Amino acid sequence: MTPEEFRRYGRQVVDWIADYQERIESYPVLSRALPGEVLAGLPEHPPEEGEGFDAVLADLDRVVLPGITHWQHPSFFAYFPANASGPAMLGELLSAGLGVQGMLWATSPACTELETRVLDWLAELLDLPARFRSDGPGGGVIQDSASGAALVAILAAMHRADGGASGRDGVTGRRTVYVSSQTHSSLEKAARMAGIGAANVRVVDVDPGTLAMEPAHLDALLAEDAAAGALPVLVCATVGTTSTTAVDPVRAIGEVCRRHGVWLHVDAAYAGVAAVCPEFRWINDGLAEHADSYSTNPHKWLLTNFDCNAMWVADREPLLGALSILPEYLRNRASASGDVVDYRDWQVPLGRRFRALKLWSVIRWYGAEGLREHVRTGVRLAQDLAAAIADDPAFEVLEPHPFGLVCFRPRWDGLAGDAADAETMALMERLNASGDLYLTHTKVGGRVLLRMAIGAPATTDAHVRAAWKRIREEAAAG
Amino acid sequence: MTPEEFRRYGRQVVDWIADYQERIESYPVLSRALPGEVLAGLPEHPPEEGEGFDAVLADLDRVVLPGITHWQHPSFFAYFPANASGPAMLGELLSAGLGVQGMLWATSPACTELETRVLDWLAELLDLPARFRSDGPGGGVIQDSASGAALVAILAAMHRADGGASGRDGVTGRRTVYVSSQTHSSLEKAARMAGIGAANVRVVDVDPGTLAMEPAHLDALLAEDAAAGALPVLVCATVGTTSTTAVDPVRAIGEVCRRHGVWLHVDAAYAGVAAVCPEFRWINDGLAEHADSYSTNPHKWLLTNFDCNAMWVADREPLLGALSILPEYLRNRASASGDVVDYRDWQVPLGRRFRALKLWSVIRWYGAEGLREHVRTGVRLAQDLAAAIADDPAFEVLEPHPFGLVCFRPRWDGLAGDAADAETMALMERLNASGDLYLTHTKVGGRVLLRMAIGAPATTDAHVRAAWKRIREEAAAG
Repeated sequence: MTPEEFRRYGRQVVDWIADYQERIESYPVLSRALPGEVLAGLPEHPPEEGEGFDAVLADLDRVVLPGITHWQHPSFFAYFPANASGPAMLGELLSAGLGVQGMLWATSPACTELETRVLDWLAELLDLPARFRSDGPGGGVIQDSASGAALVAILAAMHRADGGASGRDGVTGRRTVYVSSQTHSSLEKAARMAGIGAANVRVVDVDPGTLAMEPAHLDALLAEDAAAGALPVLVCATVGTTSTTAVDPVRAIGEVCRRHGVWLHVDAAYAGVAAVCPEFRWINDGLAEHADSYSTNPHKWLLTNFDCNAMWVADREPLLGALSILPEYLRNRASASGDVVDYRDWQVPLGRRFRALKLWSVIRWYGAEGLREHVRTGVRLAQDLAAAIADDPAFEVLEPHPFGLVCFRPRWDGLAGDAADAETMALMERLNASGDLYLTHTKVGGRVLLRMAIGAPATTDAHVRAAWKRIREEAAAG
Repeated sequence: MTPEEFRRYGRQVVDWIADYQERIESYPVLSRALPGEVLAGLPEHPPEEGEGFDAVLADLDRVVLPGITHWQHPSFFAYFPANASGPAMLGELLSAGLGVQGMLWATSPACTELETRVLDWLAELLDLPARFRSDGPGGGVIQDSASGAALVAILAAMHRADGGASGRDGVTGRRTVYVSSQTHSSLEKAARMAGIGAANVRVVDVDPGTLAMEPAHLDALLAEDAAAGALPVLVCATVGTTSTTAVDPVRAIGEVCRRHGVWLHVDAAYAGVAAVCPEFRWINDGLAEHADSYSTNPHKWLLTNFDCNAMWVADREPLLGALSILPEYLRNRASASGDVVDYRDWQVPLGRRFRALKLWSVIRWYGAEGLREHVRTGVRLAQDLAAAIADDPAFEVLEPHPFGLVCFRPRWDGLAGDAADAETMALMERLNASGDLYLTHTKVGGRVLLRMAIGAPATTDAHVRAAWKRIREEAAAG
């Protein structure tokens, strides 16, 4: 494709996306495609000769769009928002256009240094501890996801705990990782991938009211495991769990970790970015004293399209110890000097895109003010919804709900237990099938709750009110 | 950013990229930025108020470009090409514009089914075995990189070898992985991350002439390790090594693997895509009978911007066994039906971008013909260069060089050993510092060779001839 053709088709694609944004509410939020339907709409064999890009755009409308569940739809409430925004998309395009691969500082110094600067900016915006900044022993890095960050944290923690023995000789002997029943499944997956094993992921009790991890039980498990000869590797505290946005007591957990000499990873994938607002800085309590690693996703609630996880460590040495490897063909003067950062040693893969461009674009376009406004809007809409649900005697709402997620259920007069759950699930299926909105569910204490996550940039009062009206009507009809 | 603003700034960004493509030869290939220079050009603090996108573009020129090593420059010969192309960039932009997250089939059926179709297309284009196609027990998936694919392959292989014991209880006992000294470092890194340990990565001898793995030595090591009580997990054969594009004898290695019941992973990260051309289908020999997993990077030599690794498995069951996990909030009717693929169970992270769009765009724009033409051009330019080097008595060229990489060195009359190596390294540093071209080095038999990798879409005869002239002149002056 020549530069002139790129100009022409590039404009068409930009217009296609702008049109898509303008007409997005005309689509059902949840795709109605049946399994195999998109596949059947695509030719079985690749083309022998090239086609114009117009043909791709035509098939995008014809085949792809009917199979899209619209994450950017203002009535998408199913999962934590995966915000895209104009500046993020343009940052992504610039990254593709430059086409650099930043595995080493030397393979594009700007790719590394812009990332370092932007992660320092984000640490400042969120008021994260000074020891996470790049001018000390720690630092920040962009990972693909909170899952990737969790795996990297476990590997670094294990390196610190066993002096590198497992990286050298393999995992020998029992290592343990500590989560709660509310911790994201990526921690268990990471423990499986790291050779620790699912059975050695210890599940700490939660307070049945707040669903927050119980530090006393963590303390007991750590003591018990150490006494039994296990090597505790990492404790994961969560700020804003996936199921209900519960917040673990990071400071108290950190004190337990410190006593036992165990790595504390704080997974704030969804809620961490709320700390752009001073009124949410309470979620950072205990980080400065106790967190060895911390991760939050600008690709969830901070207007940056997937993938963009921000991860910080208080000390980069164990990370480098766990992940560095230097074959001859990657040796270079800059790396050998020790004056530069090579982010390939901070992550699972070797290669890396220039993802800092999109986060840089977002922070500059919105500014701190704009980011705060975005988070506050999502929280306000969620709090208004929660108040409306609490006012309705036919529904109950799960407390607390400090961020943008509200969990609730109809009371289903006369029904309880499994029968009530079946009605709630059927209600959700009907609502989702309507295309008007998209919700998910979770279980708390074995009982089904609906999850409504608010925070897409296009979502307004009107969308939340309309959704609530549809839910009430559909429940009443059910 | 409103849709109208997006139209306006989107056009500016498209034009910026087209302009960049047109003027790319005016930049030094290797950035001349010193450590800290880009960092110093960026404000220390994030902006309080938002800025226009013009400001971002201005800083892109002012601060970022001087820190860019230009991977798309026609005289970038340092690493295997990381091709970007117009249709790939536009596919990436469409992916960002739709902003869907395809962790589950249900979260955007088109994201999953287009990927399935496009991986089947690519398998057909490369004439890969039928058992890699999605209509049998195997299938294809897009990973972030060959490193990610290697980790996933090891985890699946370990699951098959120990019946899931390591995922459940952690790695207990010695597991072994088999590579050669020429295998990419990501295999050792994956073995470390998976809890197997670097010391249990067994290095099989290579033929000193071809640098290809010796199946007889592999056989001996496997027998020795099994007799010593180790559990062999995976053998990695490489088609086109990073250092010199050596090709391991996949069929003979596969026969050894079959005899010992060990998983064969074939890493064809760079060279695999050459099989779009029938004259390169010999690299697939043995795959149909023996390969359990296979991986190649369209983001290297197939015009698709990073990241886009294509990985296939002959049997998806061990992969799912190693990587599946299903928390309540991800349960849904489609997944439970078993009628759909959830690609989150095929990879390390949970979330995933709609990367199939860019590969789809590339295959449609170029067609099979265009892809073959691209590979053939790179090979022809490399073979012409190798012939020119072989004709020059002041240089020697490493044989064989079947693809787009040529390894060579000046003979440095009167010098040998370390002294010659020092001259070769100094020559490379001078050439790279000139900005005219960018090379890397490797070591074969302990001696330094220059690597010149050809394959960027912008590279023509003229660029290769100019590079060769510069190299000869600089060597003569050295």
